[in-house]
Amino acid sequence: MSAILIDGKARAARLRAEVALGVAEIVSVRGRAPGLAVVLVGEDPASSVYVRNKGVATREAGMVSVEHKLPADVGEDALLALVATLNADDAVDGILVQLPLPRHIDADKVIAALDPAKDVDGFHPVNAGRLMIGQPALVPCTPKGCLMLIEEALGDLSGREALVIGRSSIVGKPMAALLTAKSATVTVAHSRTRDLAGHVARAEIVVAAVGIPAMVQGEWLRPGACVIDVGINRVVGADGKGRLVGDVDFASALPRAGWITPVPGGVGPMTIACLLANTLQAARARA
Amino acid sequence: MSAILIDGKARAARLRAEVALGVAEIVSVRGRAPGLAVVLVGEDPASSVYVRNKGVATREAGMVSVEHKLPADVGEDALLALVATLNADDAVDGILVQLPLPRHIDADKVIAALDPAKDVDGFHPVNAGRLMIGQPALVPCTPKGCLMLIEEALGDLSGREALVIGRSSIVGKPMAALLTAKSATVTVAHSRTRDLAGHVARAEIVVAAVGIPAMVQGEWLRPGACVIDVGINRVVGADGKGRLVGDVDFASALPRAGWITPVPGGVGPMTIACLLANTLQAARARA
Repeated sequence: MSAILIDGKARAARLRAEVALGVAEIVSVRGRAPGLAVVLVGEDPASSVYVRNKGVATREAGMVSVEHKLPADVGEDALLALVATLNADDAVDGILVQLPLPRHIDADKVIAALDPAKDVDGFHPVNAGRLMIGQPALVPCTPKGCLMLIEEALGDLSGREALVIGRSSIVGKPMAALLTAKSATVTVAHSRTRDLAGHVARAEIVVAAVGIPAMVQGEWLRPGACVIDVGINRVVGADGKGRLVGDVDFASALPRAGWITPVPGGVGPMTIACLLANTLQAARARA
Repeated sequence: MSAILIDGKARAARLRAEVALGVAEIVSVRGRAPGLAVVLVGEDPASSVYVRNKGVATREAGMVSVEHKLPADVGEDALLALVATLNADDAVDGILVQLPLPRHIDADKVIAALDPAKDVDGFHPVNAGRLMIGQPALVPCTPKGCLMLIEEALGDLSGREALVIGRSSIVGKPMAALLTAKSATVTVAHSRTRDLAGHVARAEIVVAAVGIPAMVQGEWLRPGACVIDVGINRVVGADGKGRLVGDVDFASALPRAGWITPVPGGVGPMTIACLLANTLQAARARA
């Protein structure tokens, strides 16, 4: 037996098509397209690629994307002033400040300065809090996308045993909140967890978000589990070539899992698609 | 063998004494005592008792307590106006709106109107979000008190297996966030959980917050577990007399647990003591 591969690209394409329809609708009602402002500080190559890809995807969905590039040595005050301008700009429905920020800038302060209604990354404390207490919120893109993939595989999650490995504010914690809201029984494991293999063995849903290559062994899995691999780790193979691997050992997981996301092509495409969905959601809420 | 009874009254008395010292310090620095404003809408007998007890405890700690009693049919606008006045009142360090509110008032809206810096119940989305993402926050009183009791019993919680039964925004969810922040491996169970007994059997820490009398059976417990019973349920015994019982079946849990909170006298006294601690924390942050 071999796991069903969860095709994140196909699911993301469907979501992007849905977003494009929603965008067309909002254009017909409001007379202008939703606008996403992306703020990039410095020249980090990976961040630059992300920002470029987000811009392309945003425009493909029929939205307006404006990129604000600031030098790496920009002052915190200048960045906060830009955020204030974007908060006040009626043409801007969503604001994304690409992380990480340079060390001399307090990222928490910048995120807290965002209008929560425009916080399409879902990182503002108000959005984190609303998610936690079950109020409508802008939800971080990666866990939002993971949830869609899990529901596509399993349908109703009520009563399912779920394990989230990793407790970051960007993935692990919001993922746990989303699964709990869907009435799964959720355990959050992390670096201090003693019997990780035992927890994995009980889980019908495993979300791995730790950033350690092939850290979850396939032999640990409960047969038939739905495995969502958020990790994107660059490793160098025996041939000296770099390649991307997840947090789950794919080769040993494939024969044991029921469903599994490949890396790349699983969670990754969903993250950008969910950013578009969040921008549409923000625009609708403001309309 | 019999479990050690966790004496919530004694721990709460110690906390209240610490708060009183902190209050004296802030009075000497700032020239006035921290102030707590408690808002009570309507005449619910239980709420009236809570509010009175909170007032007494606040004054005993050397703080100023002001109670605002509004009729049950007060309009939402009038309540929001009072909140705005209290937000702006420099003598008020903490604001507590006693729940539940009458049905014609949107409680979420009232809580969201509080200045998060004065939200000593820790129910505002900003405080829930800060707790979730690991920033300094005003934390809901009951789970804050539970954590103190657990740490008193077990010390360092890193790597401990913890089970929180109940997923309310007031107890279960913040409790899980607090335990995760202390590096426990936390599972949140609830009404849809399939194998509750199995989860209880693995847990070194069990926090029961469901409001169902004696729902957790002592036989389920892992021997030596630390059991925190948040439930306060009024039941009528065979003798026709009412008495208070927790969510854990105390008689069967006592010989099996390592530590257990009695009901009453366990978690309850900690809740008010933590309200005082939160008021002091808010006053210090504003000073």
